[in-house]
Amino acid sequence: MQEFLDSCRKLIGSDHVLTQDADTLAFVVDWRQRFQGKALAVLRPASTAEVAGVVTLCNQFRVAIVPQGGNTGLVLGSVPDDSGKAVVLSLKRLNKIRRIDAINNTMTVEAGCILADIQSAAEQSHRLLPLSLASEGSCTIGGNLSTNAGGTAVLRYGNTRELCLGLEVVTAGGEVWEGLRGLRKDNTGYDLRDLFIGAEGTLGIITAAVIKLFPQPKARLTALVALKTPDDALQLLAMAQAHCGASLTAFELMSDFSLHLVGKHFPQMQQPYARRHAHYVLLELSDSESEQHAGQLLENLVAEALDKDLIEDAVVATSLAQSRALWNLREHISMAQAAEGKNIKHDISIPISDIGRFISQTDALLQQHFPACRMVTFGHLGDGNLHYNVSPPENMPDTLFIQRQAEVNLIVHDSVNRFGGSISAEHGLGALKKEEILRYKSDIEMNLMRAIKTALDPQNLMNPGKLL
Amino acid sequence: MQEFLDSCRKLIGSDHVLTQDADTLAFVVDWRQRFQGKALAVLRPASTAEVAGVVTLCNQFRVAIVPQGGNTGLVLGSVPDDSGKAVVLSLKRLNKIRRIDAINNTMTVEAGCILADIQSAAEQSHRLLPLSLASEGSCTIGGNLSTNAGGTAVLRYGNTRELCLGLEVVTAGGEVWEGLRGLRKDNTGYDLRDLFIGAEGTLGIITAAVIKLFPQPKARLTALVALKTPDDALQLLAMAQAHCGASLTAFELMSDFSLHLVGKHFPQMQQPYARRHAHYVLLELSDSESEQHAGQLLENLVAEALDKDLIEDAVVATSLAQSRALWNLREHISMAQAAEGKNIKHDISIPISDIGRFISQTDALLQQHFPACRMVTFGHLGDGNLHYNVSPPENMPDTLFIQRQAEVNLIVHDSVNRFGGSISAEHGLGALKKEEILRYKSDIEMNLMRAIKTALDPQNLMNPGKLL
Repeated sequence: MQEFLDSCRKLIGSDHVLTQDADTLAFVVDWRQRFQGKALAVLRPASTAEVAGVVTLCNQFRVAIVPQGGNTGLVLGSVPDDSGKAVVLSLKRLNKIRRIDAINNTMTVEAGCILADIQSAAEQSHRLLPLSLASEGSCTIGGNLSTNAGGTAVLRYGNTRELCLGLEVVTAGGEVWEGLRGLRKDNTGYDLRDLFIGAEGTLGIITAAVIKLFPQPKARLTALVALKTPDDALQLLAMAQAHCGASLTAFELMSDFSLHLVGKHFPQMQQPYARRHAHYVLLELSDSESEQHAGQLLENLVAEALDKDLIEDAVVATSLAQSRALWNLREHISMAQAAEGKNIKHDISIPISDIGRFISQTDALLQQHFPACRMVTFGHLGDGNLHYNVSPPENMPDTLFIQRQAEVNLIVHDSVNRFGGSISAEHGLGALKKEEILRYKSDIEMNLMRAIKTALDPQNLMNPGKLL
Repeated sequence: MQEFLDSCRKLIGSDHVLTQDADTLAFVVDWRQRFQGKALAVLRPASTAEVAGVVTLCNQFRVAIVPQGGNTGLVLGSVPDDSGKAVVLSLKRLNKIRRIDAINNTMTVEAGCILADIQSAAEQSHRLLPLSLASEGSCTIGGNLSTNAGGTAVLRYGNTRELCLGLEVVTAGGEVWEGLRGLRKDNTGYDLRDLFIGAEGTLGIITAAVIKLFPQPKARLTALVALKTPDDALQLLAMAQAHCGASLTAFELMSDFSLHLVGKHFPQMQQPYARRHAHYVLLELSDSESEQHAGQLLENLVAEALDKDLIEDAVVATSLAQSRALWNLREHISMAQAAEGKNIKHDISIPISDIGRFISQTDALLQQHFPACRMVTFGHLGDGNLHYNVSPPENMPDTLFIQRQAEVNLIVHDSVNRFGGSISAEHGLGALKKEEILRYKSDIEMNLMRAIKTALDPQNLMNPGKLL
């Protein structure tokens, strides 16, 4: 492998071929620090041509490649296994914004651009890049595309897939596919773009993309309402969509226990209600007219929902600071949960109409097997996507509970499957769920996927052991 | 082949295996009646299982399959060649609406459902199916999916691709892929759905789909404005998007000559303006609040555009009948053009920001080669999609002009390519453009597509000679 590494050094410079453990550590440990792999080297090319060159060398020497962006993934998709035979190919030096076209409402960005940076760049051009997620300060757009990231604005703007018009990809063979089109309509052949999006780096390496932009809304207003059941939340969702159309940009469900944990571990945060309610919904309107107009819409909605007994109470933010405070409650759930101890997380989606039944049936099953386990149920209800997390009963040590993770997963994911749902709504399969998915996907579907993998990466060099 | 046909008869019934010319004619002639192919037989299975059975037989006997919906395609994608060796597999008997889930905002429909029928069914559930195009009374949803149809509401709701959540597909091997998921988020592997969508039946046969529905707007209002240049239209588009956000559901450009032809050939239709203007834009707002609110938005927009000299005049429809009359002008352009004589049509897209330059440069090139040729330029400006059609100079017989179609196409499509556009925005490649596309797509892209085709249809039985 010395010859391979020397060729890499010649191609991209010795400084960018990392082989010392101290240098490679950050690239081989996953975001949640649950797994540490090993890499032959970490390669940091600076351009699409250098990426293509590196992939060509990997073909020549039959070296497996783990493409990596911000390494913020949650399913071990961006770290190498512990064989030490693969290289990590970091895209972070491909970090140029190549072009912003405000009239076409597009920006052309390299894969290694940090999401928050391109959000800012869009804003400076008076445009909105709606993709937004917890790790936006560290994750890269290449990673967002490769995992088809979701986030908080999917209800209105779609997943990362829906935000991408074109791609530049280095194929498994080391060629560059120039698909950087900024077109809303193009029916000239197979949809290669969507095949590379969400492929978790197993079919090729996304090096740049054309991303859709939107006009900035004139106002954003938020309300937190209290209600009795998830079914009431669904009725409220339908009412909000009928009243507000595409202005409804977020609709987030939180169970009482989720918000209770935030209050317990972050006592300095103001709790919106004096008494506890069974469920809460955080909803957000983005308005193209004015703050006043948004306020009126939100007030009308809340009034009608109260009138129809759909909600028990409501807090409407009347300032940006109040809106921020309500979002903060939602965004502190994960941290509050971590402060409470270990728990078992699920990133699931269900047809929206079945969410109420799914929650009650699955809660009941879990209570049968783990009496008094505590449900931290929250998430993007408007997308049918729940973070359906399970904390141990108060008297059970969390380490003991975690040992039974497989049992918990089986109950939850079998239930998801009965409702025609997905066991990975946002996060992908990576190395973590690629075995589990075999329980739920048909052989026919797996074989179609394998056929595509073999066709586009016949040597199985692209992120082997992930997704498939 | 007698044995093959007998097996088909046994499987789907003799009545549904058509072999007489009188019976098969409608299935082998294309929509514009420019081409007549020949089929070994037309097969009309009634269910997904029967489709799978037929495909299995075709595999056994190595018979090529041309899947067909409403046969309304414009690029010879749904008719067989003249060898007489392929069967046409008509999906029209798979015409059940399997389910409407108003809370999940989805409907599950079989491939052979007529688009207008499922629009009506959605409406009866107080939902909107936004896909709408000229042939909606005849085309099927399976065909819409296989060609990724566009239509008049793409600006707000996307192409057919964006309206589909899940598919059921009979693979080239005759197996059934059950991918009928009604989920907004699902990151569990390669995006097979989008690979089959737009594949023009060359990778498998779509037999059913889960389609997204939306709340019905409370009001739709339309305005026709007159303006000087396409660049002014683009500025108006940006202004309308900033003011109206997602309420802007249509933004259609029409050149003066387009509207002039409508006036000439349909004199009974009321012309909106006393004098001629260089360009017109038809814009539509769909409002979730009220007609009054939409009217106010539209008035404000028109007032600001007049104030900034972006537009020369405006007619705002104040009733549904007036709205209809304005849309009628737009929808009669194709017929008016046909009444005027033969012309050469192009279905192109361009990054929106370059539309003005594209039109002026390409108009100039055409005038150089065909002095006094007449441009019927109209289309979905908001999507960057123009029907950039060329009528012969008044003194040139249209048959003479049509003989030089290849020259005209070359000028237009080379220009499209220089601007990073697409030579088939809505219609697909079919048999008509599959050679031409080779001039504009890289070998790398073509090879990726060929690799996928070979992987999923190794015997090349699925609509051979189309797309690739």
